[in-house]
Amino acid sequence: MSSAFLHSARSQVPAQEPLQDAIRIATKLAARLAETANARDQAGGHAAQEREWLRESGLLTLSIPVEFGGQGASWPLVYQVIRILARADSALAHVFGFHHLQLAGLQLYGSAQQQRRLLTLTVDERLFWGNALNPLDKRVTASDTNSGFILDGIKSFSSGSVGSDWLTVSAWHAPTQTALIAALPTRQDGVSVQADWDAFGQRQTDSGNVHFQAVALPHELVLQAPAQAATPQATVRSQIAQLIMSNLYLGIAEGAFEAARRYTDEQAKAWFASGVAKATEDPLIQHRYGQLWLLLRPAQVLADGAAQELEKVFRKGALVTARERGLLAVFVAEAKCLAHKAGLEISSQMFELTGARSTSAQYGFDRYWRNVRVHTLHDPIDYKLRDLGRFALNGTVPEPTAYS
Amino acid sequence: MSSAFLHSARSQVPAQEPLQDAIRIATKLAARLAETANARDQAGGHAAQEREWLRESGLLTLSIPVEFGGQGASWPLVYQVIRILARADSALAHVFGFHHLQLAGLQLYGSAQQQRRLLTLTVDERLFWGNALNPLDKRVTASDTNSGFILDGIKSFSSGSVGSDWLTVSAWHAPTQTALIAALPTRQDGVSVQADWDAFGQRQTDSGNVHFQAVALPHELVLQAPAQAATPQATVRSQIAQLIMSNLYLGIAEGAFEAARRYTDEQAKAWFASGVAKATEDPLIQHRYGQLWLLLRPAQVLADGAAQELEKVFRKGALVTARERGLLAVFVAEAKCLAHKAGLEISSQMFELTGARSTSAQYGFDRYWRNVRVHTLHDPIDYKLRDLGRFALNGTVPEPTAYS
Amino acid sequence: MSSAFLHSARSQVPAQEPLQDAIRIATKLAARLAETANARDQAGGHAAQEREWLRESGLLTLSIPVEFGGQGASWPLVYQVIRILARADSALAHVFGFHHLQLAGLQLYGSAQQQRRLLTLTVDERLFWGNALNPLDKRVTASDTNSGFILDGIKSFSSGSVGSDWLTVSAWHAPTQTALIAALPTRQDGVSVQADWDAFGQRQTDSGNVHFQAVALPHELVLQAPAQAATPQATVRSQIAQLIMSNLYLGIAEGAFEAARRYTDEQAKAWFASGVAKATEDPLIQHRYGQLWLLLRPAQVLADGAAQELEKVFRKGALVTARERGLLAVFVAEAKCLAHKAGLEISSQMFELTGARSTSAQYGFDRYWRNVRVHTLHDPIDYKLRDLGRFALNGTVPEPTAYS
Amino acid sequence: MSSAFLHSARSQVPAQEPLQDAIRIATKLAARLAETANARDQAGGHAAQEREWLRESGLLTLSIPVEFGGQGASWPLVYQVIRILARADSALAHVFGFHHLQLAGLQLYGSAQQQRRLLTLTVDERLFWGNALNPLDKRVTASDTNSGFILDGIKSFSSGSVGSDWLTVSAWHAPTQTALIAALPTRQDGVSVQADWDAFGQRQTDSGNVHFQAVALPHELVLQAPAQAATPQATVRSQIAQLIMSNLYLGIAEGAFEAARRYTDEQAKAWFASGVAKATEDPLIQHRYGQLWLLLRPAQVLADGAAQELEKVFRKGALVTARERGLLAVFVAEAKCLAHKAGLEISSQMFELTGARSTSAQYGFDRYWRNVRVHTLHDPIDYKLRDLGRFALNGTVPEPTAYS
Repeated sequence: MSSAFLHSARSQVPAQEPLQDAIRIATKLAARLAETANARDQAGGHAAQEREWLRESGLLTLSIPVEFGGQGASWPLVYQVIRILARADSALAHVFGFHHLQLAGLQLYGSAQQQRRLLTLTVDERLFWGNALNPLDKRVTASDTNSGFILDGIKSFSSGSVGSDWLTVSAWHAPTQTALIAALPTRQDGVSVQADWDAFGQRQTDSGNVHFQAVALPHELVLQAPAQAATPQATVRSQIAQLIMSNLYLGIAEGAFEAARRYTDEQAKAWFASGVAKATEDPLIQHRYGQLWLLLRPAQVLADGAAQELEKVFRKGALVTARERGLLAVFVAEAKCLAHKAGLEISSQMFELTGARSTSAQYGFDRYWRNVRVHTLHDPIDYKLRDLGRFALNGTVPEPTAYS
Repeated sequence: MSSAFLHSARSQVPAQEPLQDAIRIATKLAARLAETANARDQAGGHAAQEREWLRESGLLTLSIPVEFGGQGASWPLVYQVIRILARADSALAHVFGFHHLQLAGLQLYGSAQQQRRLLTLTVDERLFWGNALNPLDKRVTASDTNSGFILDGIKSFSSGSVGSDWLTVSAWHAPTQTALIAALPTRQDGVSVQADWDAFGQRQTDSGNVHFQAVALPHELVLQAPAQAATPQATVRSQIAQLIMSNLYLGIAEGAFEAARRYTDEQAKAWFASGVAKATEDPLIQHRYGQLWLLLRPAQVLADGAAQELEKVFRKGALVTARERGLLAVFVAEAKCLAHKAGLEISSQMFELTGARSTSAQYGFDRYWRNVRVHTLHDPIDYKLRDLGRFALNGTVPEPTAYS
Repeated sequence: MSSAFLHSARSQVPAQEPLQDAIRIATKLAARLAETANARDQAGGHAAQEREWLRESGLLTLSIPVEFGGQGASWPLVYQVIRILARADSALAHVFGFHHLQLAGLQLYGSAQQQRRLLTLTVDERLFWGNALNPLDKRVTASDTNSGFILDGIKSFSSGSVGSDWLTVSAWHAPTQTALIAALPTRQDGVSVQADWDAFGQRQTDSGNVHFQAVALPHELVLQAPAQAATPQATVRSQIAQLIMSNLYLGIAEGAFEAARRYTDEQAKAWFASGVAKATEDPLIQHRYGQLWLLLRPAQVLADGAAQELEKVFRKGALVTARERGLLAVFVAEAKCLAHKAGLEISSQMFELTGARSTSAQYGFDRYWRNVRVHTLHDPIDYKLRDLGRFALNGTVPEPTAYS
Repeated sequence: MSSAFLHSARSQVPAQEPLQDAIRIATKLAARLAETANARDQAGGHAAQEREWLRESGLLTLSIPVEFGGQGASWPLVYQVIRILARADSALAHVFGFHHLQLAGLQLYGSAQQQRRLLTLTVDERLFWGNALNPLDKRVTASDTNSGFILDGIKSFSSGSVGSDWLTVSAWHAPTQTALIAALPTRQDGVSVQADWDAFGQRQTDSGNVHFQAVALPHELVLQAPAQAATPQATVRSQIAQLIMSNLYLGIAEGAFEAARRYTDEQAKAWFASGVAKATEDPLIQHRYGQLWLLLRPAQVLADGAAQELEKVFRKGALVTARERGLLAVFVAEAKCLAHKAGLEISSQMFELTGARSTSAQYGFDRYWRNVRVHTLHDPIDYKLRDLGRFALNGTVPEPTAYS
């Protein structure tokens, strides 16, 4: 990656020794993933081996507090690592990010005992966590039993479920008309993970359906009981998720930008009517690179800023107020919208800068657009813009939901 | 397709009996192609059967003058048919359009004798023409012989070459430092068509390489001899090609728009925070549809207008002046830029209106973006904009090239 | 004006003798208005003399049917004249357009007798009509009397009222909770026209307040009685108004474009870092002109198309259906949105192409933006986009209102 | 100003006591300027009294090092103050910013002796500095004399010259074909300042012509002698200027945003077709506010970041390298382009959110667009984009000029 590019994409993480290690490891792993990213995108399916590389890298314990044996990384560092991986392979970066999202959930609404048990277990057994928590899909139901609940139904968009060791799960509890949230081993009896994700992008995110058939959920694995009002702290989870999205979009944008840049520099021919010898000397090409740069840079800077805000709010723990959480949601929404736009525009416009021959399957440059296009549909950008508009108009912070 | 949509996409072709026939046939054929378009896009490769359907439809003689046994359709009708096909399958529409482009070439710079012979042959033997004319690829050389030339080398981006009966070919003639243009049977000794097109879009356009190895080209098949100055009439060919592109982009835009519209109407759920019952009632969704509509409509109207200008210029034959040809190039450039933008924006933004579930492979909605993205790289839009700017500034028409 | 510019801005009006006359007269008058347009914009106020020029030109009878002594011009011609005038002076063009809007109102909902009387009077006495019809301002009330009504109250945004001979007026009729529409001589007792328009653009449109104090309105001047349901024909009036707006915006856009073009060509210096000798040779300047051209051209073409649709609908008279009227409203909304955007973008971006020195008051180039900015606020573009989106989604035509 | 707005526009300046003082003083002064900003914009001309308020505020010594009696403020603080003033009155803010630009010039290429003398004098005599340095205008010539030079000619775009005490001047030295830079008392014999600035925006910036007639320039006032190569340190001046521009644009954007927000909240009526009771509840209005917010916020954040980079580079003094200066130029160019766009878009689109009545002269809301439009023409944005594109492509930093 060019020095110019690195210059501006530089981490704002303080240059401490252990942290730089994570970035070094992630950078190396990203290079390894990049070698096969195009081929694996075309094949789709489960990236069993590459997930093992993630496990072996040690990065799965990055966000776990030192007291539980983890590395105690700050969120800015975790996001930086996600972004670095996403430049090369946004599907694996997604799986990685969502692993840490589940761990964050444990910290945000698990009891002290649950945190100790599950986070320690994660370190000791090198667990990989997956997601079965899609709140808009209420087909999984929880029925009361003496020792806990029985879960039945199907949960869609369960990113990282295939090949996971443990899952975070949500289930609809009819008596209280609320959802519970719990942790479960993926190999629990009655849990069946389907490798049926078939979107045209983010193809190796294992985001298919998880089926629950009379699955026993013991009380001690319930993280948020039915009818339990979400605290401001608990609702920070959706902001962690939203900022994972943002950094994934941003990593894709950075990857696409760098792929285009290198292609223009090394392979593109100057257009015959341009009057210049090299494509990189074409003023119209330079001008368009300038425009794309101005989409990328603010998205980077505001994502970094939002990560620092999130870090502050997260560390406040149970003391965080609704207003603080709300202002964080504004910062994150800003970053997400900018990353959304940067990702889509750069991954589509990059071809104006590289030309017809760059569409060959050998490069697989369309995967940047496909990945960011699929992923940016997690929740509608027009409602993020509406939330920002409301805030701008009268200071109202977004209502805490699973998406805002 | 909704009445609203048809209303504005209505043809501006005069409602004469035979012409309406072509539109009826094309509409029926498009419906047939649509059934497998997604599957064939995913498979890629040569669409042998579907090309036969094109042949059987009789539409291959659409642009051939009545005096040679063809249907004598106007260019507005030919473009309308291309656009109708492209809504369903822009790869086959491309192959179809380029067939007529080769036929137009015969009419624009073939001798009267060549026109009579080759166009009659096309009608009688139901020939399918392909392209091996890429002017930026000068690797095919023509060496003088007594009876004509010997061709050697490779020609890239040869759309429609696989499965074609005849080809239009260009070759570099070193002694005069110019290119000749000729017609050749695809089965001529030494011609070898490669099915090696591997772009991520327009996958069934058979746009791979054609190899020439000591291919004999007799004088009577040379349409434009080396060192022969191109007349204004001859240079109309690139405008026909550019307007084929425009209508392909536009057909893709229309197809994507209609796919999105139907999905929003029939399958999309209202966003939980929208406060409305149906996605189609969401003011933010309506507003964005309005914006996309305003990309589509001008592109349609200006493409139709340019087709009418082209028809006028084409019918002037050898009498067309450089200025008339130049003004046509302005009209076509306007239409092409608008169609370029409409195609890219609609095929990418459509997902904001349909949501995450619409990315399933079962719909294959990403093919609209992939198709239009690959195809819009034929020549750089920034140079079309520059040409339009020059015209706007001082009335200078674009210099006649293979692209402008 | 350059030939390039005229070429594309060419009228689509059939080249008949009397019509060409109107264009010739308008072009000459526009040139005359242009001489003082900057000075008069800076002075603001009532353009008494220039309104006399309009009267003397004979163009005030342009849209009046031949049977009443008028010129029987088609709407495309009337709009063409409005646009030509607006290039030079959009305030006077507005006053001119609104005069014809009032005349159209007479034809759309006046009785045969009213039409004959008032249109003949307009021709014979060379009347200038003004507007006091703002439907959102319900402060003018109509009280029943034996012979008609008594009007009281204030009407805002009364374009063209100052210096007018007759007014079209709307008034709120409390007993029926509906509005009546009527014609009145401006000099009627109790009518008092205020020259209090103080917007930052369209400064000479005389769009201030009209006060009504116990004004007698006889039955024979009531064009649409209270509680009288508006026919589809009657609701065509708002489309005439909307298309007047569109052509005013477009005329401003054309005027700004041409002013910029001439300045770039004749006065702008090439930027020192551009490496070219003349600003017009700068590829970045050419590229931006191309982009602005692509805003202007579709707006022109769709406005011309909408004018032709309006002409058809208008001539159907009482036979026009709600659906036909609705489709017309779609065409007009398309044209209006495009003209809105073209006007705002060109009048603001023109300065990127002309540079710092072009901001001198001697040119008054800011008036293009000020004029189009003020005028485009007549009704919100976001609701036009919403209407278009609804139509695109399911063919619903806009609900007939005073604005759609 | 709303808390939401302040929240995001918050200064990134460390909360030290004296600095907060400057912000408090500037905020108070801005409020005072705001009272008459509209009236003074309409009057134009020299703001003698308001310039005295600036002098009395003590802010003229803000950037002067403590060792010379100044306040030793950091550049981030100076820029914050400029922005605060520009929200209310961008013309006075410009004059204020350019005063500090001249002081920066003394520090960047004046000798130690010159700095001591002139900066101390500025503090002691409360001097106001103006600009006569426009490098593209080479009409002022310097002829050698024994004791220095004689200056003759005219210098345009001399912001802040009217009413200034001292000027920084550039003059063309024919023998060396280079420019010298010097300081001069405005009242020096032969210097004549013209109050002839007549642009349509930034009307009270006193940016007219300065005439020099046989003006004696002694050696000790020459800051940069002819033929003296500019050090990297010296070339930092243009970055200070560019970031002043950026903060002026940004202040205008903030002022326009806040004016719109308040108007929408307090005065705008909901559109009759919106179905909501208050304009602030309209989803289309909220959405557009969200979009404008996303133009404003990145511009703010990147301007603040660039100010911090500038501070670092400035404090390196003579040790700054060409590369460091170049990277600073990239940061500043990013901020300037974003501020340029935010300023133009917000000041034009604000009216979509406030409606027709907000165009009344009593508000003068058009001045935001006029001010930012005039000021953003200082140097072409398309060349800034080109510079950024070059950097993005291969890390090349902008060539040091008076504009980059």
